[in-house]
Amino acid sequence: MTSPAPSLAQALLNPRRIALIGASGDPSRITARAQIYLRKHGFDGALYPVNPRAETVLGERAYPSLAAVPGPVDFAYILLGTAQVEEQIAAVAAKGVPVACVLADGFAEAGPEGRARQERLVAAARAAGVRLLGPNSMGVINLRARTALSVNAALEAESLPAGRLALVSQSGSMMGAILSRGAARGIGFSHLIGTGNEADLTAGEIAALLAEEPEVDAILLFLEAIRAPHHFAAAARRAHAAGKPIIAYKLGRSPFGAELASSHTGALAGSDAAADAFFRAHGIARVTTFEALLELPALLIGRRPLPRPQRAVGVMTTTGGGGAMAVDCLGVAGIEARAPDARAAALLAAENLPHHGRLIDVTLAGTRPERVAAALGALLAAEDTDLALSVVGSSAQFRPHDAVAGIVRAAEAAGRGGKPVAAFLVPQADASLRLLAEAGIPAFRTPESCADAIRAWCEWRAPREAPPLAPVAHALPAAPDEADARRLFAALGLDTPFAVAPDPETLPADARFPVALKILSPDLAHKTEVGGVALNIPDAAALQREAAAMLARVRARAPAARITGFLVQPMAGGLAEAILGFRRDPEVGPLVLLGAGGVMAELWRDTALRLAPVTEAEAREMIAEVRGLRPLAGWRGLPRGDLEALARAVAAFSRLAALPEIAEAEINPLIVGREGEGAAVADAWVVRA
Amino acid sequence: MTSPAPSLAQALLNPRRIALIGASGDPSRITARAQIYLRKHGFDGALYPVNPRAETVLGERAYPSLAAVPGPVDFAYILLGTAQVEEQIAAVAAKGVPVACVLADGFAEAGPEGRARQERLVAAARAAGVRLLGPNSMGVINLRARTALSVNAALEAESLPAGRLALVSQSGSMMGAILSRGAARGIGFSHLIGTGNEADLTAGEIAALLAEEPEVDAILLFLEAIRAPHHFAAAARRAHAAGKPIIAYKLGRSPFGAELASSHTGALAGSDAAADAFFRAHGIARVTTFEALLELPALLIGRRPLPRPQRAVGVMTTTGGGGAMAVDCLGVAGIEARAPDARAAALLAAENLPHHGRLIDVTLAGTRPERVAAALGALLAAEDTDLALSVVGSSAQFRPHDAVAGIVRAAEAAGRGGKPVAAFLVPQADASLRLLAEAGIPAFRTPESCADAIRAWCEWRAPREAPPLAPVAHALPAAPDEADARRLFAALGLDTPFAVAPDPETLPADARFPVALKILSPDLAHKTEVGGVALNIPDAAALQREAAAMLARVRARAPAARITGFLVQPMAGGLAEAILGFRRDPEVGPLVLLGAGGVMAELWRDTALRLAPVTEAEAREMIAEVRGLRPLAGWRGLPRGDLEALARAVAAFSRLAALPEIAEAEINPLIVGREGEGAAVADAWVVRA
Repeated sequence: MTSPAPSLAQALLNPRRIALIGASGDPSRITARAQIYLRKHGFDGALYPVNPRAETVLGERAYPSLAAVPGPVDFAYILLGTAQVEEQIAAVAAKGVPVACVLADGFAEAGPEGRARQERLVAAARAAGVRLLGPNSMGVINLRARTALSVNAALEAESLPAGRLALVSQSGSMMGAILSRGAARGIGFSHLIGTGNEADLTAGEIAALLAEEPEVDAILLFLEAIRAPHHFAAAARRAHAAGKPIIAYKLGRSPFGAELASSHTGALAGSDAAADAFFRAHGIARVTTFEALLELPALLIGRRPLPRPQRAVGVMTTTGGGGAMAVDCLGVAGIEARAPDARAAALLAAENLPHHGRLIDVTLAGTRPERVAAALGALLAAEDTDLALSVVGSSAQFRPHDAVAGIVRAAEAAGRGGKPVAAFLVPQADASLRLLAEAGIPAFRTPESCADAIRAWCEWRAPREAPPLAPVAHALPAAPDEADARRLFAALGLDTPFAVAPDPETLPADARFPVALKILSPDLAHKTEVGGVALNIPDAAALQREAAAMLARVRARAPAARITGFLVQPMAGGLAEAILGFRRDPEVGPLVLLGAGGVMAELWRDTALRLAPVTEAEAREMIAEVRGLRPLAGWRGLPRGDLEALARAVAAFSRLAALPEIAEAEINPLIVGREGEGAAVADAWVVRA
Repeated sequence: MTSPAPSLAQALLNPRRIALIGASGDPSRITARAQIYLRKHGFDGALYPVNPRAETVLGERAYPSLAAVPGPVDFAYILLGTAQVEEQIAAVAAKGVPVACVLADGFAEAGPEGRARQERLVAAARAAGVRLLGPNSMGVINLRARTALSVNAALEAESLPAGRLALVSQSGSMMGAILSRGAARGIGFSHLIGTGNEADLTAGEIAALLAEEPEVDAILLFLEAIRAPHHFAAAARRAHAAGKPIIAYKLGRSPFGAELASSHTGALAGSDAAADAFFRAHGIARVTTFEALLELPALLIGRRPLPRPQRAVGVMTTTGGGGAMAVDCLGVAGIEARAPDARAAALLAAENLPHHGRLIDVTLAGTRPERVAAALGALLAAEDTDLALSVVGSSAQFRPHDAVAGIVRAAEAAGRGGKPVAAFLVPQADASLRLLAEAGIPAFRTPESCADAIRAWCEWRAPREAPPLAPVAHALPAAPDEADARRLFAALGLDTPFAVAPDPETLPADARFPVALKILSPDLAHKTEVGGVALNIPDAAALQREAAAMLARVRARAPAARITGFLVQPMAGGLAEAILGFRRDPEVGPLVLLGAGGVMAELWRDTALRLAPVTEAEAREMIAEVRGLRPLAGWRGLPRGDLEALARAVAAFSRLAALPEIAEAEINPLIVGREGEGAAVADAWVVRA
């Protein structure tokens, strides 16, 4: 009797018939660990050590080959060295094992030869319908099913708390580090999966599987790179539908880290701002402090993203200095500790608790649980905050049950999924942290991770509905010049008047003078440098003269450039200049960038970035993010700019995402007029893929 | 036989005869705690509970009044309520006790009445030669002398590790939190002192005393406000001379935190940038993550500030993901993980260790202590780094002695005061953290505090030699106009040509046209708004005409303004505009600010701030910090500006610090010409104190 073939989720996340290919009988070797850990932590399915040189391995019957294993196998963990992996993938394919995991490194991260080796591996697996985890994977740990299918040294621990968090980590060693830090806090995991190089199965695809697992409440990601972004997008939608938050810690916030993550994983590094745009678009909460990865889940689980976040919290404390420290760190993260509103103040007053100021200090009123619960209950009633925070002093150290009881009571009164109550414990207070973890209450060890997690809560969004990518019926020539770029932008909905002429004699006489004149050429990215731009031409006669002179100049300075004609455009006078950029990030795909114009804005890197395309509503958010565009919103009584036209321009330009033949494009500057005057393209270019 | 009167340091830091005024016999009351804790932790000096309603307190003989205590008292801790404190200060004065500490709050932090109460307290203490700690002080803990003279609940702990760190905290509850967090890590304290409101004794003055204590290696500060900055400056010099670092964590990095710190302590809040400038000037290392306050001391103790910091470190790891995380966080903090230089690479190659790239991953080479020591030794030999960092994986959790041994060996080889070795432990690894603490090796729990502490190490400076404040012989009128401001700047060394005339008829005919014309008035801060500025005047005739028209305009629009004449200046054409500002911060005193000119620079808050006065060398550092001034340094081939003239202008302007009658001043804009063309004041004002 054969059991039915397992689903990918079953085979990967809860394998019951496991082959360990290359299992060693020497317990000091890393290749012995998977078997040791599986047994140590109580795996009760079928285990098949495969080793042609031993009858038994660590006291269990061994098999000379995978083929010799009786009956089906769900999961084959290939523990052998790099050179032997391909042969074993063939064996896995022959046996019809649905999932193979490769421990060895030496693949895509190890130069061209390794990359080729990895490509052969994937091709062989795909051809046979085998899904591949790794290479360079630490395997799969399912603590609820007592399946410690990994060589990770963290499994040396005598016992590990099972919980309802799933972790997908591209770094194997971080699996262990996160597991151990969680265990110390009483924060347990359901699954921990090391994805390594992600030659086939990516963190995104596995996250989508985890979103459907009933034993999983939240999905944590430790990422070095974003691969297969469409899988991530699908995972985010499934997780959102299932009410399960996805929380990411991603390397690459600094250039050195990005370089390293890239060399470590063999992936092309995108920019960190692109990763931010990606997480934002897909409703993935990103933490920037390491411990917040463990601390944020309790804050998001059972809750939905806030429809109208206030970026404000109510804070009470039993330690003045500690409370002030929390308020300060929250402020650095852009979250305001807000004084109680009328409703909260009335409730505090009724309880004879302090009810003024940004920090409700109940130290003198007493730290008894009912007082703490009353204070937090009042703060939860405020209508202009997103969370109530309790900052706990020495009672957390010496009277954990008392210190925690009031917080738990307030959280229970708020109900599951209600407005959150969280706690920052100022002294060393391990027992209190555990009690809070048991009660499912978000609790923080440092003011920095407290502020980071609360910021992530306030910034958490539902996955966005990307605007439909209507196909653009526009043929771009193989070698586009600026006029071609402008015609393309016009087809997308961003139309700015201009005229072209093949030679000086055919230039329009009826232009709206003064005009700017430019040489047209697909070969000249920097027209000014070759004398190919003339501004403020007053009339038709001057225009003809200037064109003839320009042609002579450009031919002299850039004899090889193909000249495709002349472009004439009205001199645009506006209030301000903006930059619009489009590019395809190697990790996350098409992006649109908006910045303020000018050298200074470039110096200050003052830009907003989003996955393209964007709606006009998103474009308005982008405009609000760029400091250098604030004067256009009437800052300090300056005249207002046509921000609606700018938003329309951003949205239209972002539709370049629909044209896979476009690799990059830029409008620099886009001149923004006064309200009602529109926005005009002053200079533009596109680069074909 | 009477012993000699103790010094302030003895009486405050190591009191042997202690009176507890208002000691309670009810162990549940806070006023009983000091006695309980003193006995619990083994105080063996003389203890005098003062309580008029009891013969004995907690089994010890009590005294009805301080006067009734036999013999001298070093330290009187007044535990009574706010209203009774003044009476007891009188008793302390009568008894000749050198130090009194006040627990009660309700003084300067509690509004005008409390402020007046505090002022009376200080006046009474000063008159009697009594030094005052507090009010709102949690007392003094000297763990080496087993003197737990405090009501802080952290003293509930059964035993507390004595060490060689001193903590001065304006927040009493933070004393306990820091003590408990240190204890959990095996990081012990010599002294912990709660300064509360600092009505008399300030953190700075106490830090100066601690700098002379042989049992103290480093001085930690938890600050809400900076009071008596001259004391801090003196403390910093003494500590530097004694080779003892001062490390500060200060609230107020966000506006909400600053507001709170101010209301909490009754101090006027200065700006956080001013606090940064203050710490920098005085060689006080500032951490911005809370745990780094505990972790940085081991890095600075026994070392001197780096003469030429590279802002770069060598990093080795036994966990790829953890190492990459550390490198990334370092990069976010502006510290580069640098690949081994030729020397380090040769040493690594000789040991057959990896020797390329930003991260030396020895996981495969083995985590044996001698391998780790060899790798760290090689990284220490690099000539272009400030530190060698070891990032430790699972061995730190399961084999602490092994994990730590290689690091300790490398640190010992480097020698005390040598180039530092530090460790970041990625998993939960309490035992390893303790072992490293015992060995005096800086060790970090989170990548954020690791990066913050290493950044603080790279930015640590010796206290600066402030330039001498030569008196400025210049009389400023009671109501200065712009010409007066310019004459003052000229006296300081910043001279820009201008001419004045009392009326249109006496205007100079021989000016260097074109010129700008301005109305002079001590009452018109915004001359443009009343038509009091005219630019680009081509010749003498036009100048006279414009002046007459201007006078009529200004008289019509601002009839009450005193008109003191006209100012004529050449139109300054330069490469860029800068802003120079001077003000007196309520916490740290005179400051000079340099920024880029224009609305955009204001939007981006792109400024550099220093304690005034500054040398030209410091001014050059300021110029390098302002992004918006980078084009003047030849950025992207732009013409170079006269940065030497700008530096001279900044230094000259900063000498305003010598003139206590000046509260504020600004030059906006200062026009910076091309190299050799100088810098010209385009507009200026001063405000008298």
